[in-house]
Amino acid sequence: MKLLKTLSVASAFTALPTLALAQEAAAPGFDEIGPYIMTTLLFLVGGFLVFWMAAGFAMLEAGLVRSKNVTMQLTKNIALFSTAAIMYWLVGFNLMYPGEFNGYFAPNFVPTVLEPVGLAAADASLDYASVASDFFFQLMFVAATASIVSGALAERIKLWPFLIFVVILTGIMYPITGSWQWGGGFLSELGFSDFAGSTVVHSVGGWAALAGAIVLGPRLGKYKDGKVNPMPGSNLALATLGTFILWLGWFGFNGGSQLAAGTVGDITDVGRIFANTNMAAASGAIVALILTQVMYGKVDLTMVLNGALAGLVSITAEPLAPSLFGSLLIGGVGGVIVVLTVPMLDKFKIDDVVGAIPVHLIAGIWGTIAVAFSGSATIGAQITGILAYGVFTFVVSLVVWFILKAVMGIRVSEEAEIQGLDTSELGMEAYPDFTKG
Amino acid sequence: MKLLKTLSVASAFTALPTLALAQEAAAPGFDEIGPYIMTTLLFLVGGFLVFWMAAGFAMLEAGLVRSKNVTMQLTKNIALFSTAAIMYWLVGFNLMYPGEFNGYFAPNFVPTVLEPVGLAAADASLDYASVASDFFFQLMFVAATASIVSGALAERIKLWPFLIFVVILTGIMYPITGSWQWGGGFLSELGFSDFAGSTVVHSVGGWAALAGAIVLGPRLGKYKDGKVNPMPGSNLALATLGTFILWLGWFGFNGGSQLAAGTVGDITDVGRIFANTNMAAASGAIVALILTQVMYGKVDLTMVLNGALAGLVSITAEPLAPSLFGSLLIGGVGGVIVVLTVPMLDKFKIDDVVGAIPVHLIAGIWGTIAVAFSGSATIGAQITGILAYGVFTFVVSLVVWFILKAVMGIRVSEEAEIQGLDTSELGMEAYPDFTKG
Amino acid sequence: MKLLKTLSVASAFTALPTLALAQEAAAPGFDEIGPYIMTTLLFLVGGFLVFWMAAGFAMLEAGLVRSKNVTMQLTKNIALFSTAAIMYWLVGFNLMYPGEFNGYFAPNFVPTVLEPVGLAAADASLDYASVASDFFFQLMFVAATASIVSGALAERIKLWPFLIFVVILTGIMYPITGSWQWGGGFLSELGFSDFAGSTVVHSVGGWAALAGAIVLGPRLGKYKDGKVNPMPGSNLALATLGTFILWLGWFGFNGGSQLAAGTVGDITDVGRIFANTNMAAASGAIVALILTQVMYGKVDLTMVLNGALAGLVSITAEPLAPSLFGSLLIGGVGGVIVVLTVPMLDKFKIDDVVGAIPVHLIAGIWGTIAVAFSGSATIGAQITGILAYGVFTFVVSLVVWFILKAVMGIRVSEEAEIQGLDTSELGMEAYPDFTKG
Repeated sequence: MKLLKTLSVASAFTALPTLALAQEAAAPGFDEIGPYIMTTLLFLVGGFLVFWMAAGFAMLEAGLVRSKNVTMQLTKNIALFSTAAIMYWLVGFNLMYPGEFNGYFAPNFVPTVLEPVGLAAADASLDYASVASDFFFQLMFVAATASIVSGALAERIKLWPFLIFVVILTGIMYPITGSWQWGGGFLSELGFSDFAGSTVVHSVGGWAALAGAIVLGPRLGKYKDGKVNPMPGSNLALATLGTFILWLGWFGFNGGSQLAAGTVGDITDVGRIFANTNMAAASGAIVALILTQVMYGKVDLTMVLNGALAGLVSITAEPLAPSLFGSLLIGGVGGVIVVLTVPMLDKFKIDDVVGAIPVHLIAGIWGTIAVAFSGSATIGAQITGILAYGVFTFVVSLVVWFILKAVMGIRVSEEAEIQGLDTSELGMEAYPDFTKG
Repeated sequence: MKLLKTLSVASAFTALPTLALAQEAAAPGFDEIGPYIMTTLLFLVGGFLVFWMAAGFAMLEAGLVRSKNVTMQLTKNIALFSTAAIMYWLVGFNLMYPGEFNGYFAPNFVPTVLEPVGLAAADASLDYASVASDFFFQLMFVAATASIVSGALAERIKLWPFLIFVVILTGIMYPITGSWQWGGGFLSELGFSDFAGSTVVHSVGGWAALAGAIVLGPRLGKYKDGKVNPMPGSNLALATLGTFILWLGWFGFNGGSQLAAGTVGDITDVGRIFANTNMAAASGAIVALILTQVMYGKVDLTMVLNGALAGLVSITAEPLAPSLFGSLLIGGVGGVIVVLTVPMLDKFKIDDVVGAIPVHLIAGIWGTIAVAFSGSATIGAQITGILAYGVFTFVVSLVVWFILKAVMGIRVSEEAEIQGLDTSELGMEAYPDFTKG
Repeated sequence: MKLLKTLSVASAFTALPTLALAQEAAAPGFDEIGPYIMTTLLFLVGGFLVFWMAAGFAMLEAGLVRSKNVTMQLTKNIALFSTAAIMYWLVGFNLMYPGEFNGYFAPNFVPTVLEPVGLAAADASLDYASVASDFFFQLMFVAATASIVSGALAERIKLWPFLIFVVILTGIMYPITGSWQWGGGFLSELGFSDFAGSTVVHSVGGWAALAGAIVLGPRLGKYKDGKVNPMPGSNLALATLGTFILWLGWFGFNGGSQLAAGTVGDITDVGRIFANTNMAAASGAIVALILTQVMYGKVDLTMVLNGALAGLVSITAEPLAPSLFGSLLIGGVGGVIVVLTVPMLDKFKIDDVVGAIPVHLIAGIWGTIAVAFSGSATIGAQITGILAYGVFTFVVSLVVWFILKAVMGIRVSEEAEIQGLDTSELGMEAYPDFTKG
């Protein structure tokens, strides 16, 4: 069939060169289809990089919990990704991006349907990309949101209520608030700006995690006699691997959010975004390195890892406009935030096992405010957006967590928690060959 | 033939008097070279993603064996990949894709030769992709086949006979059967359909593994007094990482198998494949999650991991045609298969250490049959293909394993197995600083 | 803005179809911008793959040190990458690639500035790629250089003097010597050839590591009573993962160094490079496998891993010109080098913890010499280049290490070394839940 098509084009050229233009309309050339192909490719490459972040969250969190809870943490992470993938198909994507709902019109609970196989150029959105690639890319973002929650609530939450929360978060909550901005809803009209989701993705995950951490309460023995009892992660190699994976995936997260790659301006912008994203991460890591040395006399690797991640979250709201130096400053403040706010949370006895709330919520707020400095939005619009996302997500999450607590309980028993969730809940150790210290 | 076609098109251009057209023939524009560039790029990106699956298999298998056999498992995995790379160059690629052999003409034992450096557009197969990129991509598939075998036979097979089997599998067996379908052989003419290799790659690996597991026998103490003695994997974090790596690599595995990316229809199809592949994996994981909860009262992480992999294998025979809902169903059945057939193998005292046979063979058969449901092939053609691959691979593998057993022995001594292959065979522990429990 | 652009183009077509060509000059078509887009994409994809090598080095080195030094090794690796990223922006990139300095004109200490957002095609280097993508790609190479040093000096060097050395190496030394060749300096004029950096990147890292290992001295107890005391790595699964990551990243390292992807010749060459790179790695691994079996009667996994890496380093100076068979030979010699020179270093009591000097320095020299065999350069030019890089980097590194030693000390105390750097220097264990053997 392809051979036939090629021959017919060739014969058209040979016979009647003056018909070339008409022929081109029938089989459009790269000037027309090139941008579509490049942007679709951007979504596919960006999408698999953001998919990879699911592994990053899993490794980071598995490395930062104690060995007796590692199997549970791994189970939650692969289950939450899979749940998000199904819920976003079932309702999320069309709820968020219908052009009809937009956060205030009647919601649109319809599963995602892809274009037909072998789509003709005439039927494609040549100024954008394929629906499937767009769906694939966006789906990875909602999974990231859910991953944030699982880290904060580790080592004490039951598996099934957590997954029910993920169903609601990824199927309903995230798509509704996402549509406010990325679905063309009221915040986008208001001038709120959040390029790749410091607020739309990261702080939403952070708010949901904060609500969960409050309802759930701290781990047994974490805060005792006014003291904070450190519970060191069981595998820092895994945590570092997870951070590197997240860092890598973030190039897709921010770069893909350019949503276009088929012009000189767009692909050049994607390059700017890659360079700025990397700079913010490096800066966040170095600031945390220096700050922990200065404040505690010793470098703290977990702070350095979270510093890099906070730098990444900080630049996510505007990874394009800043210079490299601006990215260094924005990411560096992210590093400061982590070092200063991790102990702050402990003062409020909010037990965030992996530091997800400082990294994703607080640095996410900072990154969103920093957009105003680069002139991409007013400070008023940014604060309005931050509040809208915060109030909705925090309040609805609180309600959902309380309902889950009342209906089925969200916390394992004291004995189960002390024994570790792996043997008590799952009957399977992550490292059965190694004795515990 | 391709060269002739290109020449005839070029001469058609030259015949016309306008200079612009002749100029274009000398330096062809993107309308002519764009598809070649994009498809070559698809093979390179798809290829490095499938390469990454070699790491995925290594981590999955290293995580699922006991700590005393981890160094051996890692050694086997890096050695099998390297062996496959050399054998596929030496004979495999030209045996599989010559256009002359096709599985029934005289075989063609010739090493692969790449195009010259700085290939001119006039000498390129502009309707396909570069030979090197195609070779690179296809080579990764044969390595995946061999990786499947190493998992099933872990913890008791000797290194060298295993590698000799890999030489035969990747240099001879896989290329011969591969040519039946992808080399334009009798199965492709018969209407058998296997898009990315549920049968051609995965069930072939599964059949070779099954034959090996039967000849090799179960691990010492695995089946005792009519009981199945569980031998839990030593590092579930590693096994989960391996699963995520495989999941990521599968986008290249299935997406690259579109074999074209330079038209609107092709790149849109690659997007469909990504979305469907992800859905099948998520569905397989969730089904295994729910099913193990219902059947055993506890979620089993290793089943969830294998559920995701079985979902991936199931969708591999036809990742393009199904809808997202169809992919959910196809992958979900893969999840059911894993949960139900892992214990079944134990009943036959076939000791498959990582669950490779349920995941790659049984889900591979299911995925191949499922193609008929989407109308891409008849059920008869599919069953013919399954049987052809099964009979040939299983019988030849049995013969090879028996010869290896007779000639050099394939199993380590009882003492070596009890002591662990790492110290007995390699003199090197994977985790020497940690005491065993 | 995009909507406006589309409208204006559309109206131009409607009003004056004959002006379509003039319009096309204003908004250039894919024949003009396609190569720029593809090469920029090559740098971004190649760049994220080489970024991933930072994780590879971290995992390889964390796996090859003893468990008591893992946190320190991870800290060094994430810190050195971040330091390199900042220094290369601050001075390195413009020092290396200004077109003005080139290694002998007045140096150019100016931070990197990216193109403006939304660059117009008329302002872009349409025959190359975006500055940001180029900067992003090149930055990853300097980080690789620094990673090489951290492995060799592991388990005894203090964090801060190491990071100060990284500042000098990545900000000054590497950019100066890099400009000799890749900045259009005297070695490139002399005909020295080093495609992707066997010498420019790998041997430079190796020389700096060698100088450091000499000044620092061996680990306590490594050489005692004329005997070499083996100190096995704590996690070979991690080391294998790191090797696979490096192997994957190398496709970007070598493939991206084609520096062009927008013509048939260029993308085909990138494919050649991928295939050759993979072959050299596979060959290095297999040679080390066979050689350790023959020489020691047992396969040595760490040698196999380093054999693959040495194969990769060997092919890096010329991954394009050789045939697949040539790549097999070049990479295979790399494997021989590793097996033979690792014990040789021990004879000189140079303690290289991970084998970085054999892999990156000695195989790097071999790869650079091998270029002459494929006719891409004269043997004289190659040796001149090797000596120039060697003398400069080794001497300057020696001086810097001696100054650091005199001013602040570079080695931890004996007690700290025995106790392990994790608890003594950082107060944080990598695997706190597991007892030491």
